[in-house]
Amino acid sequence: MEARQHTDRHYDAELQELNVKILEMGGLVEKQIGNAISALVQRDDQRARMTIETDHTVNRLDVEIDDLCLRLLALHQPTAKDLRLITTALKITTDIERIGDMAVNICERTLELNQEPQLKPLIDIPRMADIARTMLRESLDAFVREDVDLALKVCRDDDAIDDLTNQLFRELSSYMIESPQTITRAIRLLFIAKYLERIADHSTNISEMVVFMVRGKSIRHLDHIPPSV
Amino acid sequence: MEARQHTDRHYDAELQELNVKILEMGGLVEKQIGNAISALVQRDDQRARMTIETDHTVNRLDVEIDDLCLRLLALHQPTAKDLRLITTALKITTDIERIGDMAVNICERTLELNQEPQLKPLIDIPRMADIARTMLRESLDAFVREDVDLALKVCRDDDAIDDLTNQLFRELSSYMIESPQTITRAIRLLFIAKYLERIADHSTNISEMVVFMVRGKSIRHLDHIPPSV
Repeated sequence: MEARQHTDRHYDAELQELNVKILEMGGLVEKQIGNAISALVQRDDQRARMTIETDHTVNRLDVEIDDLCLRLLALHQPTAKDLRLITTALKITTDIERIGDMAVNICERTLELNQEPQLKPLIDIPRMADIARTMLRESLDAFVREDVDLALKVCRDDDAIDDLTNQLFRELSSYMIESPQTITRAIRLLFIAKYLERIADHSTNISEMVVFMVRGKSIRHLDHIPPSV
Repeated sequence: MEARQHTDRHYDAELQELNVKILEMGGLVEKQIGNAISALVQRDDQRARMTIETDHTVNRLDVEIDDLCLRLLALHQPTAKDLRLITTALKITTDIERIGDMAVNICERTLELNQEPQLKPLIDIPRMADIARTMLRESLDAFVREDVDLALKVCRDDDAIDDLTNQLFRELSSYMIESPQTITRAIRLLFIAKYLERIADHSTNISEMVVFMVRGKSIRHLDHIPPSV
């Protein structure tokens, strides 16, 4: 980390702690997504309920990271790159926390779906979940490693999710048209696809903020993701 | 504003500018929601397209506010309450910007809906939109006036939106079951209800951050909103 204004060891340790806590929070939420989808695919109520419970730990980390950021800003009054790092961390936690909320929403729809017979074998949704999880992990890796190329890759991957949602939308629509008794279940699956889309959106937002943090340039509101910045 | 560490006039002016810009951005987004719903109710393609265009201005303000916050943090190194004010502003802009995205999404679904005959007269959706807009306005008023009671009111209003979404879900489901040719349109309307639900969620998040800013206490992850803090 270049252009560091403060070199005291305590400050370095706290910055390090910030990275560790963000990765910890991200890892937890990544696991939440995986468990939510397993609960859905295996029709496992207990796993859904346990995943909902994990949300407390995610929320605790959210508050802890915010506190740490405020302490770093107040005590060390960083400037330039460190300032961008800490303010980015502040913004990123909101996205991670909401990704956790999406995992909880998936579990809630799963508990509802498990009360009725399975509509169809799930193929697209687990595939979307894999992409979304990878996007989350890579966006946080990009943050910790200050890796702009990886952040840009995440932004580009967002299209794959949108394509899969549209495909699922068409497939579920024909189910519903053919047999109206599937409508409620199909809509719940569609909502789950939408939650995964939002997870991908949040990961994209994190990545855009990482680009700003490292380069000091905003790509947030561009129509196309540039190959490099 | 008590406990101010810096009393120089320039700093005060910049803090004032921060409030003005946040209200400006909030006002724009509030108008976007209103226009999106008018475009939907009046089946007005042109208004939908114009509303999508406004998004550039919202995005410009988002970048400007972030820049201003970073400048305030770097040059004035505020502590205590001012530090919380500026970091809250940084987080709030993300929410306001995403509310703008939701208005754009409503317009996109509207353009699709306008290509088919109207499914039904819209009653619940405009009502939800009114509540969501009020929640946004009040959450930003609460921020500027540091009004905890108003912020807590916004958090409580979130339930009304959830009730209306559930009601609409049931109503649209019976439409779809009775006449499968309505399915695509009904789902688009359901997505619009979900966007409004997210606008209400973002406004609730803003309000929770205002409570933290003023009281230094987090109510973000409580199961029930207390009557006062």
